[in-house]
Amino acid sequence: MKTHLAPGRVDYDGTQIHSLWAYRTFGVQGDSIVAFQGGCEIPFDNMVDLEDVRARSRIASPLMLHFICEHFDLDLEKAVLRQRLLAAIVRDVLGGQVRREGDDLFVGAGKLSISIATLTPVSSKIHFGVNVERELHVDVETRGLRDLGADPTEVARGVLAQYAAQIDGIHDARTRVRGVP
Amino acid sequence: MKTHLAPGRVDYDGTQIHSLWAYRTFGVQGDSIVAFQGGCEIPFDNMVDLEDVRARSRIASPLMLHFICEHFDLDLEKAVLRQRLLAAIVRDVLGGQVRREGDDLFVGAGKLSISIATLTPVSSKIHFGVNVERELHVDVETRGLRDLGADPTEVARGVLAQYAAQIDGIHDARTRVRGVP
Amino acid sequence: MKTHLAPGRVDYDGTQIHSLWAYRTFGVQGDSIVAFQGGCEIPFDNMVDLEDVRARSRIASPLMLHFICEHFDLDLEKAVLRQRLLAAIVRDVLGGQVRREGDDLFVGAGKLSISIATLTPVSSKIHFGVNVERELHVDVETRGLRDLGADPTEVARGVLAQYAAQIDGIHDARTRVRGVP
Amino acid sequence: MKTHLAPGRVDYDGTQIHSLWAYRTFGVQGDSIVAFQGGCEIPFDNMVDLEDVRARSRIASPLMLHFICEHFDLDLEKAVLRQRLLAAIVRDVLGGQVRREGDDLFVGAGKLSISIATLTPVSSKIHFGVNVERELHVDVETRGLRDLGADPTEVARGVLAQYAAQIDGIHDARTRVRGVP
Amino acid sequence: MKTHLAPGRVDYDGTQIHSLWAYRTFGVQGDSIVAFQGGCEIPFDNMVDLEDVRARSRIASPLMLHFICEHFDLDLEKAVLRQRLLAAIVRDVLGGQVRREGDDLFVGAGKLSISIATLTPVSSKIHFGVNVERELHVDVETRGLRDLGADPTEVARGVLAQYAAQIDGIHDARTRVRGVP
Amino acid sequence: MKTHLAPGRVDYDGTQIHSLWAYRTFGVQGDSIVAFQGGCEIPFDNMVDLEDVRARSRIASPLMLHFICEHFDLDLEKAVLRQRLLAAIVRDVLGGQVRREGDDLFVGAGKLSISIATLTPVSSKIHFGVNVERELHVDVETRGLRDLGADPTEVARGVLAQYAAQIDGIHDARTRVRGVP
Repeated sequence: MKTHLAPGRVDYDGTQIHSLWAYRTFGVQGDSIVAFQGGCEIPFDNMVDLEDVRARSRIASPLMLHFICEHFDLDLEKAVLRQRLLAAIVRDVLGGQVRREGDDLFVGAGKLSISIATLTPVSSKIHFGVNVERELHVDVETRGLRDLGADPTEVARGVLAQYAAQIDGIHDARTRVRGVP
Repeated sequence: MKTHLAPGRVDYDGTQIHSLWAYRTFGVQGDSIVAFQGGCEIPFDNMVDLEDVRARSRIASPLMLHFICEHFDLDLEKAVLRQRLLAAIVRDVLGGQVRREGDDLFVGAGKLSISIATLTPVSSKIHFGVNVERELHVDVETRGLRDLGADPTEVARGVLAQYAAQIDGIHDARTRVRGVP
Repeated sequence: MKTHLAPGRVDYDGTQIHSLWAYRTFGVQGDSIVAFQGGCEIPFDNMVDLEDVRARSRIASPLMLHFICEHFDLDLEKAVLRQRLLAAIVRDVLGGQVRREGDDLFVGAGKLSISIATLTPVSSKIHFGVNVERELHVDVETRGLRDLGADPTEVARGVLAQYAAQIDGIHDARTRVRGVP
Repeated sequence: MKTHLAPGRVDYDGTQIHSLWAYRTFGVQGDSIVAFQGGCEIPFDNMVDLEDVRARSRIASPLMLHFICEHFDLDLEKAVLRQRLLAAIVRDVLGGQVRREGDDLFVGAGKLSISIATLTPVSSKIHFGVNVERELHVDVETRGLRDLGADPTEVARGVLAQYAAQIDGIHDARTRVRGVP
Repeated sequence: MKTHLAPGRVDYDGTQIHSLWAYRTFGVQGDSIVAFQGGCEIPFDNMVDLEDVRARSRIASPLMLHFICEHFDLDLEKAVLRQRLLAAIVRDVLGGQVRREGDDLFVGAGKLSISIATLTPVSSKIHFGVNVERELHVDVETRGLRDLGADPTEVARGVLAQYAAQIDGIHDARTRVRGVP
Repeated sequence: MKTHLAPGRVDYDGTQIHSLWAYRTFGVQGDSIVAFQGGCEIPFDNMVDLEDVRARSRIASPLMLHFICEHFDLDLEKAVLRQRLLAAIVRDVLGGQVRREGDDLFVGAGKLSISIATLTPVSSKIHFGVNVERELHVDVETRGLRDLGADPTEVARGVLAQYAAQIDGIHDARTRVRGVP
C-alpha cells in the first residue's frame, strides 16, 4: 500500500478516478492512496453516481482535500467497504464533533464531504473529498476543515498513514486464521 | 440483512462462529447479525486466530455483549473489511471516549473488545465481543460497558440497526454507479 | 429482485442492454427484471453476439414482448445460466406446445424468441424478446404470441413474478445448506 | 462435460455428493453428470439441507433414478442455478404433465423429486433424485416414473445428453459476445 | 483450448489484443492461442503497458513470430501467470541458449521477445512476440530466431501444441485433488 | 512474498501442505515459500492426488529438497499455474540437462521430482519435492540432485529467490496495464 501527498494544487474534475491515474501522474504504482488539495468541479459527463445525474446535482467546491484510492481488484462491493473504512478513518483523524453516516461526514447539520467508489477495467477506485473552505450559495448546508480549525496537510498525513496501516492490517488479519466447520 | 437480539444468556465458546449457527439456533436464515449476552471462554481447540494459539493466550470474560455476523460469500478479505466496519459502528454507538485501532476498541489503555473473522465452507463469519464487566486478574488491562455507564441492551439495539442499515447502504451504493475508463 | 412492467411502447435498439438502463429510465435500482412491448431493430454497431455480426444477420421484429434483466455481478457464465432459467420460465408460462432449446423457444418449426446475455462494466444483463406478431418476409420461420392466443400483458406479468420468485428462491437455497467433504 | 450411466444398483445415502465421487467410483474425471438407480435413505448426519435437519424430515424412497453433477468451481449460487436448469431439463424430458416449482417436480399434487446443491472443498455438487416407485406410508403425496409410464433408463439417457449439451451450450454462449457500456 | 496457425502475413498493431479477435478474424471460438508472422508497430494510442507510454518507448520490429492467447475469464493475475508459462514454453521449444527473465526471453545480452497481458470486458489476453529478424538502429540490443537458426513455423507449431497441452494439463490437475485441512 | 530456508531435517508426510503450516511451525506469516530437506513418506490417508490413491502408488524418497508454497486465495487453477511456474524455475536453476513436462522434472528417462497443488479452507498450497538421493528398488526410474552434482542448499537458495522475485514481478505486471476493448 503506497501513500503519496501531492504538493501543489490539483483540481478534481472526475478524471482522477480513472484507472492508473496515480501511476501516470506521479509514478505511484500498485495499490495506493494519494492526497492533494484543489477545487472540485465535476462536469455532468464525468459524474459516476447516476443518482446525481438523475437529480442534475451540481458537485463543486472552491477548495477541498481530496483522497484517491486505487486497488487492483474488480470487486465493487469490496471497494465500497473500503470507502466506508476510509470515511471512518477521516472521522477518527478529525475527532469527536464529526459524525459519519455511511460514506458521508457531517458536523451538526453541515455536510463536510463527498465520496464515490467505482470500477475501472483493471481496478477499483475511491474518491473522497473533504471541504476545506465552506461553499456559500448552495442548497445544502456545508462545513469545512477551516470551521473545525483543522490543518488540511496534517489531516492528509494522518489519513494517509492510517489508511495504509489499516489496509495492511486487514491483509495481516486474513493470513493467520484457520477455517471453521 | 436480518437482525436478531437473542433473549437470555448464551455463553460464547467458539462454536457460535460455525456456519449456519443463527439458522440452526434461532431460525434466522440468510445474511444476518445476531446479538446476545453471556460469558466467554474459548477452549484452545476452538481458537481461530493462530496468533492466540501460538501465544497460548487465554480468551475469557465473565460477561460480554456478543455479535455474530454471517454473510454467504467466501471472501475472507471482505469479511475482515466488514469486521472493521462493525468495530467502527460499535465505536460510534458508544461515542467519544472509545477509540478504534483496527478491529480493537479501547478506552484509554483499557481493552474493551475481542474480535475475529474467518471462513466456513459456505459463508464468512465475524465474532465481535464487548466486555460488559471488567475482568480482574488478567495480564491485559480491560474496560467494560459498566465502566462507560452504557446499557448492553441499548448498545445491542443500536449496533444491530446500524450494521444492517450500513450493509444495506453498501449494496445500494454498488447498484447506481457507472464504470469509468 | 425488483420487477417493473413499463407502460407504453418502447422500441428495442440494443441500448436497453447497457448498464443501469432500468435505473436511468424508470428509477428501478438494484437487481431487476423489466418488461415492455415494442418493435425490435438492432443496428450492426449495437449487436452483441459476434455470430450475428459475422453472419450479417438482420435482427428485427414489428412487435415483441421484451424482458431486460440486470444483476450486479460480473460473471458471464452466471448470466447465461440465468438466461436459460428465464427461457424455461417463459416456456412454463406459455405452456405445453412451446419448446425450449438452450435460450431459444420454438412452436413446431417456428422460432418464437431471441435472446442475448452479456457484461457491462458494473453488471450482467439479459435481453429476452418474444415475438408478439409474426414477421413475414424473413428467412427464418417464426411464430408469435398471437399465434398462441396469448395476451402479452398476461405473459409479462407471469414471467416477472416467476423470475423474481425463482431468483429469490435461489438465494434462499444457498443460505441453508452446509458444506460436505 | 462427461456423462456416465452407472449399470447396476447404487443406493444413495448422502455420501455420493462428496467431492470426486465420480472419479473415485467410476474413474470419471472433470465436470460430469452421473446417473444411477437405487434406493434412497439419508441418515441425519449426512443431511445437507438444514431445513430438513430442523424439521427432522425423513428422506427415503424404495427406488429412485439419481443424478449427481460435479463442477469444479466454488460458487454455490452458480450450483443452484445449474440445479434449476437440471430440474427444467428433467421436466422437458418427462413432458407436459410434469410441473417444475424451483428445484422440485410435481405431477398434480404428487411430488416426483428431491434435490440439493452444495459445496465441497474443491467443487460444487448437485443431487437430483426422481422417484421410480411411489412410496406409500409417507406424509407427503408422491408420484413416480411408473405412474407416468416412463422408463427410467430412457429418462436417464435423455437427461444426461441434454444436461451435457446445454452446459456446453452455455460455455459456447459466453465466448462469442462483446461487452457493452 | 483451440490452436490456430494463421497463414500469410499479419502485422501486429495492438488491435489483435482486443476481445474476440480470433473469432472475428478466423472463426476460432473459445479459449485459444493463435500464431502468425508479421511486422510489429504499435502506435502510442494502442500501447497497453503504461511503463512504455511513460517512457515514450517505440515498440517495433520488421518481422516477428506473434502469439495471441485469449481466455474467457476476468482475472488479470491469472493472465500474467499464463503469460509466464507461455514464456517458459517458448524458451523450452527454443532450447538451451535462451534464458527467461519473467516474461522476457534473452540470448546473451540480446532481447528476443516482447509481451503483454491485459483484460478486455469479457476475457483476458496475452500478446507474445518473438523477433524473427534482428532490428538494427535501436537502443536495445536484440536477437532473432534467424540468429538461433530456428525456423519460425516449426517454433510456432511447437509452442501451439505445448501451450494447448499444458493448459489442458492444468485443468486436468485441478479436477483430481481433494482439499486438505 | 516471504521466503524461509528451514535449517535441520524435516521429513515430509503430507501434513506440511495443511493451511498455515509455515506460520505455525516457523512464524512465517502471509504468502510464502519455505524450503527444507528431509525424507518423504506419505501415508495413504494423507494423499491428495486421487490418481495416486486409485493406483495405490507408494510416494516415498530417502532424501528430498522440499518446497512448500502458500498463497492466501482460494483459486485452485491459479495454484496449479503457480506450481507450473515453480517447476519452470527449478528447471532454470538446475540448468540445461533438466526437462520440464507439466509439473514434473526429468533428466533423460529419470524422474527428478514430485508435486501437488491443492486448496485448504483459507489458502492454496503447493508441495514440490526434488530427489536429492536416487531411490533404488522402485518401479519408476529416478534421478537426484547428487546425479547432477548440484548442492541442495544452493538450489534451495536459488529457487526461493527466483520464486519470490517472479511472484512479485507478476504483481508488478498486473498494476501497470490499462484494459482494452
